Amino acid sequence: MNIIKGGVCAAKGFTANGVHCGIRKNKSKRDLSLIISDTKATAAAVYTQNLVKGAPLTVTKNNISDGFAQAIICNSGNANTCNSNGIEIAEEMCALVAKETGISAKDVVVASTGVIGEVLDINPIKNGIPELVKGLGDNSLLAAEGIMTTDTKVKEIAVSFEIDGKECRIGGIAKGSGMIHPNMATMLVFITTDCAISSDMLQKALGEDIVDTFNMTSVDGDTSTNDMVTILANGRAGNTEITEDNDNFKIFAKALNTITVYLCRNIAADGEGATKLVECVVTGAKSKEQAKLSAKSVICSSLVKAAMFGSDANWGRVLCALGYGVPDLDPTGVDVSFKSAKGEIPVCVKGAGIPFSEEKAKEILLENEVEILVNLNSGDCSSTAWGCDLTYDYVKINGDYRT
Amino acid sequence: MNIIKGGVCAAKGFTANGVHCGIRKNKSKRDLSLIISDTKATAAAVYTQNLVKGAPLTVTKNNISDGFAQAIICNSGNANTCNSNGIEIAEEMCALVAKETGISAKDVVVASTGVIGEVLDINPIKNGIPELVKGLGDNSLLAAEGIMTTDTKVKEIAVSFEIDGKECRIGGIAKGSGMIHPNMATMLVFITTDCAISSDMLQKALGEDIVDTFNMTSVDGDTSTNDMVTILANGRAGNTEITEDNDNFKIFAKALNTITVYLCRNIAADGEGATKLVECVVTGAKSKEQAKLSAKSVICSSLVKAAMFGSDANWGRVLCALGYGVPDLDPTGVDVSFKSAKGEIPVCVKGAGIPFSEEKAKEILLENEVEILVNLNSGDCSSTAWGCDLTYDYVKINGDYRT
Repeated sequence: MNIIKGGVCAAKGFTANGVHCGIRKNKSKRDLSLIISDTKATAAAVYTQNLVKGAPLTVTKNNISDGFAQAIICNSGNANTCNSNGIEIAEEMCALVAKETGISAKDVVVASTGVIGEVLDINPIKNGIPELVKGLGDNSLLAAEGIMTTDTKVKEIAVSFEIDGKECRIGGIAKGSGMIHPNMATMLVFITTDCAISSDMLQKALGEDIVDTFNMTSVDGDTSTNDMVTILANGRAGNTEITEDNDNFKIFAKALNTITVYLCRNIAADGEGATKLVECVVTGAKSKEQAKLSAKSVICSSLVKAAMFGSDANWGRVLCALGYGVPDLDPTGVDVSFKSAKGEIPVCVKGAGIPFSEEKAKEILLENEVEILVNLNSGDCSSTAWGCDLTYDYVKINGDYRT
Repeated sequence: MNIIKGGVCAAKGFTANGVHCGIRKNKSKRDLSLIISDTKATAAAVYTQNLVKGAPLTVTKNNISDGFAQAIICNSGNANTCNSNGIEIAEEMCALVAKETGISAKDVVVASTGVIGEVLDINPIKNGIPELVKGLGDNSLLAAEGIMTTDTKVKEIAVSFEIDGKECRIGGIAKGSGMIHPNMATMLVFITTDCAISSDMLQKALGEDIVDTFNMTSVDGDTSTNDMVTILANGRAGNTEITEDNDNFKIFAKALNTITVYLCRNIAADGEGATKLVECVVTGAKSKEQAKLSAKSVICSSLVKAAMFGSDANWGRVLCALGYGVPDLDPTGVDVSFKSAKGEIPVCVKGAGIPFSEEKAKEILLENEVEILVNLNSGDCSSTAWGCDLTYDYVKINGDYRT
């Protein structure tokens, strides 16, 4: 498997574009994106578990219930959620794509991100779609920009891999930033592949993957109303279609995992206001569940996050987060180290502090990718979670996001 | 029932003091407090549910297992947690109090608050205790100062009430600030009363009370390792001892609740970096559990907290927090209003936004005590939770707390 250039247009037969249509006031910000497959593709998606669900999710769920889709339309600047006419607007977005492209409105995935509870005006979208369709091409980057809200960096990646001697590609784009604490689904992630794979196996691959990737990512503990990960597979690579859990499925799943882990790390690193990626790697757990609860409790702790911002080796907060987040924890077995490109330093052994160089610890924690290594010494299960630090800028961004 | 002056010395027979003994580097900060009853008192306590527990909690639990205590010793600046000699040090603190006062070491409640994982030096405590005991008197305020860490305000309150024609008093002090998200117990709260009440009924009163008070308070979602609420009752008011759940017990429980609600509100309002108290009042829930989950999810949301800091009427975040925090929510029934001394403004009806004056909403939210009113329109249960806003100063305090 190789990491290749590009994002959602890396796979054969996919084109994309992103434009500014006027939902967002700032004219330099794109706010409408489109991804299209030349031919109908199998489709799979996972959605937020938040009971307050964005209207686009309801429409998308309905549209891909037959396992197929051909286009993805997404706006930023308004979540089209908690509005009495939300469904109507989301359906109109699909109809407008259909009208301009000839694709069936029932084959359109629709997504929105932005403020909750403000009616989404269809007019800028109506006016923007012709230009959006006209500019379709190898423009994954523009599409990735069009779905950003407070993100500061574009997130895209693609890989190539071989199945049946045929070269296949998967690529994806994502937006993250705030209100990021996915549960069974996440933020907005659009993935395309030219690998031939049935809808059922595509859904299986995605459903199994997110448990260890997007569901292990958190910026602020708030599970959004509009989280969605969608993948379209148009089969243009020419491999024999994957229809069962065989070796080819495993190759596909591994390639997919490369895409999702990359996007998770980048979503966490670019969390609202974040200055660094914080990765918690838990080993020695007695069960996978214990490993996951441990890793997630650490990266979700406001106090751990603030300590990481200050590059402060305050490992007591790691122990504290484990203590309240992991029901069957044995505190006397816990080892903790901090690690980064500058080295690794053990700070706690068997639940108690050990002497360490504060200077060295600081040097390690000042890096922009930091690992918190936790060994529970209770078994051989492991898990990784991705988060970021809690900073002044998170407060700034969210103290005045809407007005 | 009347609110009266004072704190833990308001009840007959209780004296207190607080000194600087040298655990904290800043000499202007008291770091050692003592509360004493003239006579042995019935005692009750509740503790953190964090599995990583401070050593003082283990020693206290053991000491009051017979239902009695006579003194409370507490230091700030070091949590005496995750240290291999923690139990030893906590027991020595009790022994030092015993030596200087003649009270049995087994009748001493011991508590610590501060950094986790640094060995607590007994020497400053040993040197400070004579002065601490010598200064015992009507010094609730000094004791309240001695337990503060990043708290900016002293928290004390007392009430008087009548039982059997006898005037009784309850008074309490508390420290809160960060790592505040109590579960079955909380931060450090010391309450004294001269009401005569058996250990069993005292424990029952406290155990029932905290479910709706301390357990509904959160500053940052982090459940501390050292949370503890203790109450001593020395019976000096001369009422017939309360030994069953009768009318007198209800009078006592109500007086206790006045103390605890006051302390919760003040702990929330003085949360680390907080500029305002945020109270979420949920009505119309189908069960008490649903009401509590709703209120707590709203006050714990980082995004709601940041919006409150910005006095931004971003009610979509309230809906979002309800959606992920309340398993059996009907989003289409939810009404939301914001309220303060400046008035009340509805912003969401039946799960959808309604037009409202941003200017008026801002005026309401700029107050330093703000209510978020949520009506679920699904039943007649209600609950209140207390929190605070998320601010630059929270990040500042916790980005550099230890070093």
